[in-house]
Amino acid sequence: MAGELVLLDFWPSPFGMRSRIALAEKGIPYEYREEDLRNKSDLLLQMNPVHKKIPVLIHNGKPVCESVIQVQYIDEVWHDKAPLIPSDPYQRAVARFWVDFIDKKIYELGSKIWKTKGEEQANAKKEFIECLKLLEGELGDKTYFGGESLGYVDVALVPFYSWFYAYEKCGDFSIEAECPKMIAWVKRCMQKESVAKSLPDQEKVYEFILQLKKVFGIE
Amino acid sequence: MAGELVLLDFWPSPFGMRSRIALAEKGIPYEYREEDLRNKSDLLLQMNPVHKKIPVLIHNGKPVCESVIQVQYIDEVWHDKAPLIPSDPYQRAVARFWVDFIDKKIYELGSKIWKTKGEEQANAKKEFIECLKLLEGELGDKTYFGGESLGYVDVALVPFYSWFYAYEKCGDFSIEAECPKMIAWVKRCMQKESVAKSLPDQEKVYEFILQLKKVFGIE
Repeated sequence: MAGELVLLDFWPSPFGMRSRIALAEKGIPYEYREEDLRNKSDLLLQMNPVHKKIPVLIHNGKPVCESVIQVQYIDEVWHDKAPLIPSDPYQRAVARFWVDFIDKKIYELGSKIWKTKGEEQANAKKEFIECLKLLEGELGDKTYFGGESLGYVDVALVPFYSWFYAYEKCGDFSIEAECPKMIAWVKRCMQKESVAKSLPDQEKVYEFILQLKKVFGIE
Repeated sequence: MAGELVLLDFWPSPFGMRSRIALAEKGIPYEYREEDLRNKSDLLLQMNPVHKKIPVLIHNGKPVCESVIQVQYIDEVWHDKAPLIPSDPYQRAVARFWVDFIDKKIYELGSKIWKTKGEEQANAKKEFIECLKLLEGELGDKTYFGGESLGYVDVALVPFYSWFYAYEKCGDFSIEAECPKMIAWVKRCMQKESVAKSLPDQEKVYEFILQLKKVFGIE
């Protein structure tokens, strides 16, 4: 069932990290190909002509685009090991709700934190923390969002941890001071090799953000 | 398996229409409750505290929020009749890709067509037509996006037909002239009772948009 599996990715992408974690959790070997987003490969343009974005998972020559669709695909094709999505339809709907919430809120608010200043940044920080608190409420006393084992929501959310340090430095605030339960959950996730090896170093991401700020002319 | 089923909805919502169509396709009885969005019910606020939006599907007292999650839930719980989502993992990924594309593009571009003027409106119309043409390409020579029977992509897209007339009147263009295959597909969908009875009259939606324009102070 494995076949030829290639992931077109870019190292700081929290979206790419989702597929890296899902593949690592299931122990599926694949070829990682780093893309230069200023000079996208012909393969990327051919495999994702609509959005022209990474990550793209290519399985036996056929592309799967969009990270949450990749994670679902990986979970469906390699279902026996480390199932990520609950089998109960209602629990699936709840997990999908929170993944959709993360997709609608976390990346955009995080970007506002490093791209803006003053009132706009203050509002973004406030809303970002409110979102994390809602997620803390959903986590409750569970080990992971998925319960006793890593699940769909965990895989979708934990990549953003690699960006937290950059958000904190750019926004001059502490996520752990506001959301200690969230950081305790992150630390549990990071004890898993599948997560730890899929996330880049936080300081390296911060340096990348500083470069981006220069490119965009943001002081 | 049916139990108590309630749909909190608002008649012009293309998102609510998705769940109406999915329930109708499967012949599942439910209670429809119209919401006044200027004075939301306590039940809506309690069932969707995060987004406070319709549609909400309440099954045996438990809420399922977000229309595409509802359609997947309906398809999973009542799987035997009129399956909407393909059983093959790759075909599922492709259907999910196009539903995600519709969610990211169609509503927002349509809104820009009726909310803006001049160059902004012209750009929105151009991009809207480009998106429909991409969808026509995916449809190809099939009867429905789902093949011989109505599927997930059909259910996600066809509700916007009820808004097409308003887009055309506000934007002074003809969707059929640009995308005849799309309109031929719409007409095939509308021959199905599940679709026809779930979509409101186009002129009624246009009148609703004219009221909204007044409320928003758009000439």
